[in-house]
Amino acid sequence: MATTLANSASTQQKLVRAREAAAKLALLSTGEKNALLLAIAEAIESRIETILGPNREDVESSGLEGAMRDRLLLTRARIKDMAQGVREVAALGDPIGETLAEWTRPNGLRIRKVRVPLGVVGIIYESRPNVTVDTAVLALKTGNAIVLRGGKEAARSNQRLVEILAAVPGLPDGAIELLDSSTRQSVQELIKARGLVDVIIPRGGAGLIAFVTENSAVPVIETGAGNCHIFIDESADFDMADAIVINAKTQRPSVCNAAEKLLVDERIAAEYVPRIVKKLIEAGVEVRADSKSRSLAVGSDLVAAEEQDWYEEYLRLCMAVRVVANLDEAIAHINRYSTKHSDSIVTRDEANARKFLRGVDSAAVYWNASTRFTDGAEFGFGAEMGISTQKLHCRGPFALAELTSSKYEIVGTGQVR
Amino acid sequence: MATTLANSASTQQKLVRAREAAAKLALLSTGEKNALLLAIAEAIESRIETILGPNREDVESSGLEGAMRDRLLLTRARIKDMAQGVREVAALGDPIGETLAEWTRPNGLRIRKVRVPLGVVGIIYESRPNVTVDTAVLALKTGNAIVLRGGKEAARSNQRLVEILAAVPGLPDGAIELLDSSTRQSVQELIKARGLVDVIIPRGGAGLIAFVTENSAVPVIETGAGNCHIFIDESADFDMADAIVINAKTQRPSVCNAAEKLLVDERIAAEYVPRIVKKLIEAGVEVRADSKSRSLAVGSDLVAAEEQDWYEEYLRLCMAVRVVANLDEAIAHINRYSTKHSDSIVTRDEANARKFLRGVDSAAVYWNASTRFTDGAEFGFGAEMGISTQKLHCRGPFALAELTSSKYEIVGTGQVR
Repeated sequence: MATTLANSASTQQKLVRAREAAAKLALLSTGEKNALLLAIAEAIESRIETILGPNREDVESSGLEGAMRDRLLLTRARIKDMAQGVREVAALGDPIGETLAEWTRPNGLRIRKVRVPLGVVGIIYESRPNVTVDTAVLALKTGNAIVLRGGKEAARSNQRLVEILAAVPGLPDGAIELLDSSTRQSVQELIKARGLVDVIIPRGGAGLIAFVTENSAVPVIETGAGNCHIFIDESADFDMADAIVINAKTQRPSVCNAAEKLLVDERIAAEYVPRIVKKLIEAGVEVRADSKSRSLAVGSDLVAAEEQDWYEEYLRLCMAVRVVANLDEAIAHINRYSTKHSDSIVTRDEANARKFLRGVDSAAVYWNASTRFTDGAEFGFGAEMGISTQKLHCRGPFALAELTSSKYEIVGTGQVR
Repeated sequence: MATTLANSASTQQKLVRAREAAAKLALLSTGEKNALLLAIAEAIESRIETILGPNREDVESSGLEGAMRDRLLLTRARIKDMAQGVREVAALGDPIGETLAEWTRPNGLRIRKVRVPLGVVGIIYESRPNVTVDTAVLALKTGNAIVLRGGKEAARSNQRLVEILAAVPGLPDGAIELLDSSTRQSVQELIKARGLVDVIIPRGGAGLIAFVTENSAVPVIETGAGNCHIFIDESADFDMADAIVINAKTQRPSVCNAAEKLLVDERIAAEYVPRIVKKLIEAGVEVRADSKSRSLAVGSDLVAAEEQDWYEEYLRLCMAVRVVANLDEAIAHINRYSTKHSDSIVTRDEANARKFLRGVDSAAVYWNASTRFTDGAEFGFGAEMGISTQKLHCRGPFALAELTSSKYEIVGTGQVR
């Protein structure tokens, strides 16, 4: 039985255990990994009551309210969903062992590029305890050991969940390790652990992500920040534009794929800017605007957008509007200010759409659709580890295949150079 | 004409120019890029005399001798080879624009994953001036801007080569930028330039690579360090083992894929250790050995290997020998001490070979072949940017495809969530 107590070992000891576990996990068959996943689902469902207690303590001592409290809260239904999610991961295909390429050289050497686990994956995240289970099972499915560093608000919930997961018979000791969340020391040790940890994935606010990417000595997959744009081209269908802008801004404003900025082609601005500003305000959105937009929507008495607004990810019902001379200026604006997450053009002109799709340097670029679709489930991946906004290793929503690396296996008959 | 003078602009100005160039390079067609590459080859060949002068000054003022001097030295023949290498890159396929995946969601959204350039690639390297041209043309072929930070010994040669490359008509201003090599300041600025630079590739000694990986805020592809092992299994063909060990150790001891350590199964050690030690010594190799090997090769009076020896990359005619109990101990030793570069097993037992290939966690794992084959040309890639020893993004020898990222282009008809 591989019980892991969050505070009973040093960070260094936990990382060494994870490294040792990774060597064992890499050799498990798909059947063995899936059996462990189903046992985890079973263990969670049969211990719901023992999770609710620690979670209630977390919620009460956090002092959080509203949406933040709701993110932390677990219920019987939510825990059952968690277990169901584990079964869905068990049902997905196993990328490990896949032959990515294979060829024979003129000297007879046979080279095979094969998919292998990354090794030890470190996750630094904030208050949602379901991330603990979601990421641990994606790591297990791909033969990786995982080191979790959750938020301090969820410490008791995470502790209990990891106890349940790590106690599943047959799971190598160290496969799922939970670090102390009471100080930042464990984050510091984790991001400096070159040689023990193969990748760090920060999931959370912009401050956390910036800290990790700036300071980590371990390779990082940067996730999440989204200053997303919608550009209304000269030939846009205004009804479609309205629907996309209102959806992308208001359907769930706190998430990274919500739109934050609206760009409008000058040639339609006199008609479209007053129209959309009115609808945004009706939908409860605070609208900030450049001087041209303000002069067009005079009745609305808009707040002037400052330079800083073009960079900012509001994550709330606020949107900045700007009139641009043409498509080129829209693309240049986006490439300058965006976080390279998700940006959309609304147009009936295919040439303009193609130019936008090619010219905007972002993970996901849309033509006539809401930016809200940048998501593992919406893309049909069956799971999601995060949304990468960097260009190395993976870009956009990522899941199982991106938790893998490759190696070359080369078979010879005594070849030398 | 896009003349770039190494010392006429600040690092920051050069990085901004490179960023702007990247947006233009990403939009070039394969034909346009190949035309630029052929013009570069032509420009190099027609200006050989103007390269030899600055290179002679570099060589004379460096005070280097022997192999180090030879690495820095350019000759007419070497410059012609350089130009020929550029033509070979022009002849390779262009990975940019390739559709990596394409599917339609139930809601009608059409999602296409397409290969795109990384953007701005930073290279930090040491004294070989041919790296300047080799890496600049691989970047150009893949639509990336490149920022070069070469060694100070090659400053005049690199300056002249970059002047020639950057002056090719049609190349966007900033596509090839050379940073000041006289101080470490430019390295510091380059590795902290998040948002301007997309990846840093350090090529050089262990000290340079460790400095960059520990301190960079920009994602890094770690290259090069190679503490490579050969394990002689119980059932090895001794003649084959001799040939592989001697080749991997002595054919070119200064490179990363040369072998540094020899592990021998205990059951054959009494016969094989004295035999190979004798041959290594005859080949001019200094042999260090664990106590068991020393007791078996008594006549040879071997130096005792210290714990540090098992970690060290000698990069010279020196090899440490150790007797291990069995295959499992060999795998455990390698996974503990190796740099995860290249390791080989010599055996006639397929089951043991398969276990070694799967169990050794290195970029390239060999069965009955020399570790010296870990190389882009030997793998048949037609080019090489480096050899990655990390697991993120790419692993092992890498070239054009690994200088790319991907993006999602999503086409809708007004879809919202």
